[in-house]
Amino acid sequence: MQLLTTDQRVRQLQDRMAVHDVDACVFLLPENIVLLTGFYVRIPGLGIAFVPREGEASLMVPSYDMDRARVTWSGDLRNFSAVVDAKPATGPLTKSLQGLLGVADGVQAHLSDLCERHGARGGRIGFEGSFEQVSPAILIEPNCVGLPTQAMLKQVFATEELFDVFELIEQIRAVKTDYDLERLSVVNEIAQFGLEAFHEAAVPGSTDAQVRSAVESAIANRGHGYRGARSVRGLATVGSGRDLVTHGWNYQITTGRTIEEGDLVMVEMGTVADGYWADNTRTVVAGAAGTELQQQADKVVWQAIRAALEAAVPGARAGDVDAAARRVCEESGLPGVFPHQTGHGVGYRYHESTPNLVPNGDAILREGMCIAVEPAFYGLEYGGGVRQEHNAIVRPGGAVALTTLDLQFGTAPVSA
Amino acid sequence: MQLLTTDQRVRQLQDRMAVHDVDACVFLLPENIVLLTGFYVRIPGLGIAFVPREGEASLMVPSYDMDRARVTWSGDLRNFSAVVDAKPATGPLTKSLQGLLGVADGVQAHLSDLCERHGARGGRIGFEGSFEQVSPAILIEPNCVGLPTQAMLKQVFATEELFDVFELIEQIRAVKTDYDLERLSVVNEIAQFGLEAFHEAAVPGSTDAQVRSAVESAIANRGHGYRGARSVRGLATVGSGRDLVTHGWNYQITTGRTIEEGDLVMVEMGTVADGYWADNTRTVVAGAAGTELQQQADKVVWQAIRAALEAAVPGARAGDVDAAARRVCEESGLPGVFPHQTGHGVGYRYHESTPNLVPNGDAILREGMCIAVEPAFYGLEYGGGVRQEHNAIVRPGGAVALTTLDLQFGTAPVSA
Repeated sequence: MQLLTTDQRVRQLQDRMAVHDVDACVFLLPENIVLLTGFYVRIPGLGIAFVPREGEASLMVPSYDMDRARVTWSGDLRNFSAVVDAKPATGPLTKSLQGLLGVADGVQAHLSDLCERHGARGGRIGFEGSFEQVSPAILIEPNCVGLPTQAMLKQVFATEELFDVFELIEQIRAVKTDYDLERLSVVNEIAQFGLEAFHEAAVPGSTDAQVRSAVESAIANRGHGYRGARSVRGLATVGSGRDLVTHGWNYQITTGRTIEEGDLVMVEMGTVADGYWADNTRTVVAGAAGTELQQQADKVVWQAIRAALEAAVPGARAGDVDAAARRVCEESGLPGVFPHQTGHGVGYRYHESTPNLVPNGDAILREGMCIAVEPAFYGLEYGGGVRQEHNAIVRPGGAVALTTLDLQFGTAPVSA
Repeated sequence: MQLLTTDQRVRQLQDRMAVHDVDACVFLLPENIVLLTGFYVRIPGLGIAFVPREGEASLMVPSYDMDRARVTWSGDLRNFSAVVDAKPATGPLTKSLQGLLGVADGVQAHLSDLCERHGARGGRIGFEGSFEQVSPAILIEPNCVGLPTQAMLKQVFATEELFDVFELIEQIRAVKTDYDLERLSVVNEIAQFGLEAFHEAAVPGSTDAQVRSAVESAIANRGHGYRGARSVRGLATVGSGRDLVTHGWNYQITTGRTIEEGDLVMVEMGTVADGYWADNTRTVVAGAAGTELQQQADKVVWQAIRAALEAAVPGARAGDVDAAARRVCEESGLPGVFPHQTGHGVGYRYHESTPNLVPNGDAILREGMCIAVEPAFYGLEYGGGVRQEHNAIVRPGGAVALTTLDLQFGTAPVSA
């Protein structure tokens, strides 16, 4: 299996940097390090990418992560002392995790060197200014880019001119490369282990917490090593029965509630493998076939997903995809058509904001985009709600699902 | 059990706002919402706190979270439409999760109203500018405060003057209230469920991933409902054998490696219950008593923890606590004394930066601070490393541990 990334993402970014007259960019968010280098940061902040307007990009990692970085990144690779070979440092990053771990000085020395080598001193420096929703690193505790990083960049690059790279990243990240698609295929197959565990565990007598544990355990235990996956985690939420109504029937929270026969049980599930994410939802009826209304809702949700995938062709508007799914639900005459978005982008993050599949959404779909589609019905009539969610890749013949398009109430799986 | 917070934190903040001439503060980070109101945000961004310089603070939550917010917050409570009753919105927050979920307009309307009521228009507005390490919300996917939030605040409050509240929050959060201490006691007892599961699961034949799953499952399955805990999660990392060396023996990453007899196995474990965090590490030898050197290291680490806790009295300097633990390790004559910090603050986050227990650290310890203490030895001689980590509350007679001060290699627990 080919794990090495190419410099395709770096070149895409450099093309846009030229247009906006940006001299260099510095990245600290794990999701953008994955995008540019394939490296999945272990401890938040301990993995930094530098991209000059022209020439080779650089990846900086702790010394103990050099071998791991080489699995995906063949470009310039530098190391710094952290955790096991560092003393806590002082400087602009002391407010942040980087300071706590004593890494600030080493990273700043590399950045100063890169600044001089690439003639970026006093230039326009790109930074992650508008990322207010981010992906965590392997060890989960999240890092952000705020004032300390901005102060450090101004000092190191001797500039007052920082440029927010959010839009540039949005433009390139939504369309996945062949490398990305391989990784997304892997993480969706691993997600399926979690869905299988959910179907087995969501039975009367289990607690919601136990079902969540079974789902996440299956993802971790079967996912590590699967098709070369190295760092895997499931982050699921399970709700059931009346909790789906009283606690908000969408994006429920997990409790210790015991599932009873005939309860609706819903799992909302993020799965991450080596920095690539899948987003899946399934709803089942515990120990029963479900009421006629639940079964109807289940069937219509499935039809709505199919309609959304068929509409998700290159050139389509996000609003058209939303309308396709919403129309199927509305025309069914069933109550409680979902009020939220039909879906969203997914891949480098559990939820990506491009394309946003909402009513009148004006994003244009392009081949290779990865979308999550999640139509639903909610209401007391259903005992909560019925939602399914699949991830799919936009293709000329319609989006191709990355997991089996099964119905949730025990019907045999139907292939896409 | 008393779950309701008091307005003690709000008053502490208001005292400091007066000193810095800050007219109002707006908080979007889950950890600061917990600090001020006790409310543990479900979906990142969907929970906002407003604190005026004088008078009552306000908490804004999605309509479906009103009952949940009332469990801890008795002050002004407002709701907005999100997810189940909202259409995606436009505006300055559309780049962020808040925009994706259609909440921007509702929140801005509340903030505009609060701005007028409290005379904050054109004033100095506090925001979370320097939080580069943050705690996630219940559903984990993290949110940050960046340029979109700053633009929104400037627009709503008709001001150009934003004030970074990082230092004000740091000053008050490090010392825990009685309410906090109750919550920290609960989460540490829940963490102990994970530690028990670790001792049972870390045996030859298990994979590191399976051990992690066992630890996290025990925390979730036994933790929900324990002493009133509502939202519980373990976020563990397990490494073993030669991986503890080749993958960096500190802050290892979990893989599918199968544990062999005599392997060192280490768990680094964050536990969160209702927004309060514990940070624990344990090392064991799988299926064996350990070599003489491993046993010596184990014993010295335990002595170092005791020394750190004895030194952690009100008025002590962080550097003194670090020195107390480090001296015990150095005077033992064993190789590979830990190069990292002796410890750090913990509570609202897995890792808090005050007090930072590092060599020459100048933070002054105060009664009620919650610290994590994690001395260790690392090296090939040990087959990786031996680390234990305990959380404790600073008291006049020395810090009091929140979990049992057990030795890791099977010795009977020793009470603190």
